[in-house]
Amino acid sequence: MRGEFDFIAALRKTSGGSLGQKRGSRGFRDDVAALSLAEKSGFLVISKDICTAGTHFFADDPADLILKKALRVNISDLAAKGAAPYGAFIGVIFPKTASKDALPRLQEEFLTAIEEDCEKYHLGLLGGDIAIGDTLAISVTILGLSPSAPPIRSGAKLGHDVYVTGVLGLSALGLDVRCGLHETLDPSHAEFLQNRYLLPDPPLAAGRALFPYMRASCDISDGLLADLGHILTQSDVGAELDAAHLPIDTDFPDKEAALKAALTGGDDYQILFTTDASEAEINRISKETATPIRKIGRIVQTPGLRLLNADGADIAPLYINRPGHRHF
Amino acid sequence: MRGEFDFIAALRKTSGGSLGQKRGSRGFRDDVAALSLAEKSGFLVISKDICTAGTHFFADDPADLILKKALRVNISDLAAKGAAPYGAFIGVIFPKTASKDALPRLQEEFLTAIEEDCEKYHLGLLGGDIAIGDTLAISVTILGLSPSAPPIRSGAKLGHDVYVTGVLGLSALGLDVRCGLHETLDPSHAEFLQNRYLLPDPPLAAGRALFPYMRASCDISDGLLADLGHILTQSDVGAELDAAHLPIDTDFPDKEAALKAALTGGDDYQILFTTDASEAEINRISKETATPIRKIGRIVQTPGLRLLNADGADIAPLYINRPGHRHF
Repeated sequence: MRGEFDFIAALRKTSGGSLGQKRGSRGFRDDVAALSLAEKSGFLVISKDICTAGTHFFADDPADLILKKALRVNISDLAAKGAAPYGAFIGVIFPKTASKDALPRLQEEFLTAIEEDCEKYHLGLLGGDIAIGDTLAISVTILGLSPSAPPIRSGAKLGHDVYVTGVLGLSALGLDVRCGLHETLDPSHAEFLQNRYLLPDPPLAAGRALFPYMRASCDISDGLLADLGHILTQSDVGAELDAAHLPIDTDFPDKEAALKAALTGGDDYQILFTTDASEAEINRISKETATPIRKIGRIVQTPGLRLLNADGADIAPLYINRPGHRHF
Repeated sequence: MRGEFDFIAALRKTSGGSLGQKRGSRGFRDDVAALSLAEKSGFLVISKDICTAGTHFFADDPADLILKKALRVNISDLAAKGAAPYGAFIGVIFPKTASKDALPRLQEEFLTAIEEDCEKYHLGLLGGDIAIGDTLAISVTILGLSPSAPPIRSGAKLGHDVYVTGVLGLSALGLDVRCGLHETLDPSHAEFLQNRYLLPDPPLAAGRALFPYMRASCDISDGLLADLGHILTQSDVGAELDAAHLPIDTDFPDKEAALKAALTGGDDYQILFTTDASEAEINRISKETATPIRKIGRIVQTPGLRLLNADGADIAPLYINRPGHRHF
């Protein structure tokens, strides 16, 4: 492939006659996608996130994983709202410094990644656009459907429990490894962590099963403390977290680093939610969806966030003053 | 404003309690927008275009006009489909080279531009995201509503007439002026053309009024010949254009340059469509919406594009072999 029109033509094949076409892509033969609203009900849930080289990934990460990560960062927002993936628009700013050889290979790998993830997540490719610039960047707009209004960040109330899916901090530890830290780590463990950094896998099935029970929710992209902080501020409540209940990497030799990564690391793409459902109900969903879902604390009236040890004593504000990821 | 959260907070004010909120922005207090589908019918028309410094605008163009152009390039796709603007997601990649002084000013000007154009086009601000990179880039996803399936590029048929709105080539001539050409041009004329380049104003009202009559349509972004070429290829037909009927800048001293700009210039953001409606019907809409709408030719069976003089003789393939704008 040599240029824009070839890339778009290849995207067209990916979307043509397939799920994308059925969902309104018009086979990429138009400037717009057109979705019939006639047979749809509930809510259309939309998220848009740009990922750039140097911030969200390294320019020399494997190209297919860069594309998939950019897509999954957006799918993660759907998972956290309990929405089913519907379709995606994928825009790419290709670096003008890419060599004549590198560019077609980059485009090929992107296309394969798009095809694979659209199939994996039952996601229609609805549109794409490209531009050139100095930095590789991928801009995704994702659409999902939920049966009714999805949970909002400001829905946390006194009496709710706080839950998270999965294991936290793996991606942050993987980034450490990627940057040359934790050199004495077992190689297979190091590779496992790096892969968590490179390729998130948002818990969509758990999100959809949790939909009726989530009251406030968001995905963990900036780190547990930062993202829970947003929920608390917008809900005008506080929370207590039980340090011992946090799902961290228990095999990681440096326990302190594993805890810190779980609290502040970011890039987890797990679901953080509050609920008034019973723990038994949530455990049932955890089993049915084969997804770890852990109760880590509770919503309280007093504003702010406290991290408690097993005796109920404050072990914060150890990291509490460290804000989540900021771009500037 | 100092950083991401301030910019997002400012966007929140723009969207809070306003049209954006009503249309599902959730006041920017969430990672997603959520649109109720309950009271909606027809089609949701979605377009996504990235604009980058150096390709779609100059980095030193006025910041408010850069933002508005990026937004209007997308609004143009709605106009060409006869859709009413519903909402927009605006993502910005800020250049990391921007000075501490320049960045807040840039953000302020972007915010003002967003507010003004959301009001002008009755467009809800539904979401925004930012990233940093080497090149300023603006990634817009726009949503519109149309009463039924919007016209598609492949809808041109033998017997249709070909129409365009507005005057073509002004933006391309304005870009010439911006680049130092046409030095002897009257200053007010030069300024008029430059402004057409800097700030398109898509003919939304005409597009909506034309909706029942358009069979194939698209906006003119790559140049008349290139965009009509897409329609012809995808419709498997040909077209004849009457050079004398093309709406060009008749005041421009170099008639040849004005014609070439109209045929190949791009960045017009006018509507190109085919129709089986009578010219009287189209003229009525032209009057009612105070928008020039000109019949410029007709669809024919023979593939390809012919440009004819007043005697019906070929004056192409003068520019026909020049493709429209390509990124690579």
